[in-house]
Amino acid sequence: MIHLDRASDIALTDQIVTQLAGLVQDGQLPPGTRLPSIRKLAATLSVSAATVVGAYDRLAARGLIEARAASGYFVSARRTALPLPAVAAPAGPGLDAIALMRNMLERRPGVAHVGSGFLPESWLEDMLSARLLARVARKGAKSYARPGTPAGYAPLRQQIALQLGFAGIAAAPDQVLLTFGATHGAEILCRALLAPGDVVAVEEPGYFALFAQLRGMGVKMLAVPRTPQGPDLSVLASVCDTFRPKLLFTQTLLHNPTGSSTDAATAFHMLDLARRYDFRIVEDDVYGDLHPVANPLRLAQVDRFERVIFLGSYSKVLSPSIRVGYMVCAPALVPLFLEQKLLGVLATSEFDERLVYELLASGAYRKHIERVRERLLHNRAKVVLGLAQAGLQPTLETEGGLFVWAGLPENVDLPLLIEHAAQHGWMLTPGDAFFLRHAERPYLRFNAAASLDSKLFDYLRTTLPSFARGAGAAAPGSAAIAARAPGA
Amino acid sequence: MIHLDRASDIALTDQIVTQLAGLVQDGQLPPGTRLPSIRKLAATLSVSAATVVGAYDRLAARGLIEARAASGYFVSARRTALPLPAVAAPAGPGLDAIALMRNMLERRPGVAHVGSGFLPESWLEDMLSARLLARVARKGAKSYARPGTPAGYAPLRQQIALQLGFAGIAAAPDQVLLTFGATHGAEILCRALLAPGDVVAVEEPGYFALFAQLRGMGVKMLAVPRTPQGPDLSVLASVCDTFRPKLLFTQTLLHNPTGSSTDAATAFHMLDLARRYDFRIVEDDVYGDLHPVANPLRLAQVDRFERVIFLGSYSKVLSPSIRVGYMVCAPALVPLFLEQKLLGVLATSEFDERLVYELLASGAYRKHIERVRERLLHNRAKVVLGLAQAGLQPTLETEGGLFVWAGLPENVDLPLLIEHAAQHGWMLTPGDAFFLRHAERPYLRFNAAASLDSKLFDYLRTTLPSFARGAGAAAPGSAAIAARAPGA
Repeated sequence: MIHLDRASDIALTDQIVTQLAGLVQDGQLPPGTRLPSIRKLAATLSVSAATVVGAYDRLAARGLIEARAASGYFVSARRTALPLPAVAAPAGPGLDAIALMRNMLERRPGVAHVGSGFLPESWLEDMLSARLLARVARKGAKSYARPGTPAGYAPLRQQIALQLGFAGIAAAPDQVLLTFGATHGAEILCRALLAPGDVVAVEEPGYFALFAQLRGMGVKMLAVPRTPQGPDLSVLASVCDTFRPKLLFTQTLLHNPTGSSTDAATAFHMLDLARRYDFRIVEDDVYGDLHPVANPLRLAQVDRFERVIFLGSYSKVLSPSIRVGYMVCAPALVPLFLEQKLLGVLATSEFDERLVYELLASGAYRKHIERVRERLLHNRAKVVLGLAQAGLQPTLETEGGLFVWAGLPENVDLPLLIEHAAQHGWMLTPGDAFFLRHAERPYLRFNAAASLDSKLFDYLRTTLPSFARGAGAAAPGSAAIAARAPGA
Repeated sequence: MIHLDRASDIALTDQIVTQLAGLVQDGQLPPGTRLPSIRKLAATLSVSAATVVGAYDRLAARGLIEARAASGYFVSARRTALPLPAVAAPAGPGLDAIALMRNMLERRPGVAHVGSGFLPESWLEDMLSARLLARVARKGAKSYARPGTPAGYAPLRQQIALQLGFAGIAAAPDQVLLTFGATHGAEILCRALLAPGDVVAVEEPGYFALFAQLRGMGVKMLAVPRTPQGPDLSVLASVCDTFRPKLLFTQTLLHNPTGSSTDAATAFHMLDLARRYDFRIVEDDVYGDLHPVANPLRLAQVDRFERVIFLGSYSKVLSPSIRVGYMVCAPALVPLFLEQKLLGVLATSEFDERLVYELLASGAYRKHIERVRERLLHNRAKVVLGLAQAGLQPTLETEGGLFVWAGLPENVDLPLLIEHAAQHGWMLTPGDAFFLRHAERPYLRFNAAASLDSKLFDYLRTTLPSFARGAGAAAPGSAAIAARAPGA
């Protein structure tokens, strides 16, 4: 009953599995049927015994057949179907941070994530070739049976220390702790340094996932407005004076979402305040490598980890599927952070760490980054222009990077626009998510690598006017309201 | 100055890198030296231009040379050596949980980890072949440029639901959330369900890393003695009545460290108490697959996730370097746990998840487990005998699994023994770590897969008597004290 196609690309084992599975599922081989012995089926099909063994093993792993000791293979009794509730509805296009995080990760066909925080797949494919991945996996094979070191794959920690050195940041490999990404790094340092009720300062607008993380830990956040030169120093000083925050979270380079970078004067002043009011600064550098200038100023370069805890990641510039980040800190903090890493996840994943090491050490990462920077510069200019022509006001005080932060006309009803856009294939990232309370006006964050699309600009230009509060009843805004389920 | 050995196994690129790096480091190519152009060096060495490009890229990634636009490659200026503090001293053999966790992961040559919680490397090597790893990496190449789904690699979640079904546990794939291991699973559920000051019940003795994790979160632990039949029901009932814990942590199968499995009567009674006193049960099943009986009873099988949250992991039975675990729970809890996963680490690592999927779906995992179970049964019997003959009292109420839990003579000075053993190449795992306060007597936990060594039994037999409190001054116990640094 089995016909093998020897000219096919599909392995013979897989052909046997598919056809036998079909016969079992159709009921042509009912439960209890004894299957031919391995030797017999191999002879009948003119394949090796190993091919049949592989097929039977795969069918057994799917629960379709079972081996009975000393009597051969049998079709399994039909099992009661497992409860299969419908897949949870994907998060809606709302303003909730968790929903936004899910939207960052979950992709649906026909929806363009024009506000994403990651590079598009097509920008990464030549970077992560099947050949490279196979080579890394093969090289590490022996080590995957061993526990890794708690701090993470040592050659990668050395390489990161070296690259930081190139950027003027003096750090020993022992000060570098590998994490599952910058989010994980923030988690570790907060667990080590903060208790519920503690006060921290954050930039506003700022990264919504950080806000959600801190809120989840019961930490009180004080907003310091982000200016094009960095955090607003007078607000920061008064916040310090009144509330004595324990930490300040900041993105020196290519701030998310505004795209600005802190200038030298502001940076020095921040470090001065940190010393004066005895707080630490968490410098989140996940986008720093995309900065178009060679060796831009980072706080860690000046401070040398006296006050600064530095968070890096390869998820943003390589791929969100590669869960490798790092934290760099004063030697005295290393054991505290290591302890939190052990308690939370025990260890990180050596395959991913070897992959990043290979990319860094071969120079492939540097070339990738150079290419990405160039493409971004090119794209950004056009996206900014396209958005401006569509009636938005993109921020111009940026030096490059992934994000275009664009204001909308004051009277636009942002939630309605977001919902309408989602129905038309555009997943927009609403500005309100980047504020602790309300944005002073409606904003959208665009990904310069993912937004260069005249259809997007056309959509915004033609649709925006109808989402002005008080626009006529025939406008798509009202249509969207009408289309919602009652009570939604 | 470069000589290539074309008969060598070492790639030509690597030979060029090594020799040029040597010349730079020796000072034979001082900083500022212009290197031959790519074309010229390729011609001189009769290699392809790509080989030279690869070598120059690797040297640049190590900071030894640099490309200057439109003028070629130059030896870099010697950089000031980075600060390189000595590697932090490895954790000592003490009783502290964090030190024990570090000892679990950090390996030193010449030290046998006879109390480890993992399978030895030699038991895993044929499982994780370079060919398999390369195939998995190659297959997934396309997907590594995309964000994964927040819950984890869908085919693995389906396969886990299927395997749970084989074990009589009805769970839909949507109820399965992938984690970086059971430790990560516990972290997620505690963050979602507990607040500092909340009360939970734990088994005593129990897993020290769980105790440290809960302590770190400010959760109050109440100890319920572990009997050979499961948690002591009368103590559990009185704890429930007095303190109303929110959660009970338990290991139904092959409890760590005692190796016992909960019997059916105790299991039903536990579920009854959970209903009566309205608490949830965290069933930690990391060793369950090693149970020698087919389909042993688990709480999740009876409860169907009404009260039970189930934690699984592949770190214990595959490798601690493969960071894949899972949690299964009531559909209503899924969004809460997913939220904590997102906030803490954003996503898990798809390579590791694809690797585990491939092992499960091909049947290789099942065969591995069967082999391991058989070897463990064989080893355990001999380890138990060897320890008994050395003067220890191994617990006999176990059905198999990884651990042999052995009592020592009451008067043994355990910390001194641990320290002496570490100096003689035996990393022992002290029983005290598994108790919230003090053990009622000294214990050691042995790994049956790693302890079958007559030298270990000889060491214990000859050394134990000298660690009895009050033994003579010439005994190794006192010698160990003398050998410690002053003030240590």
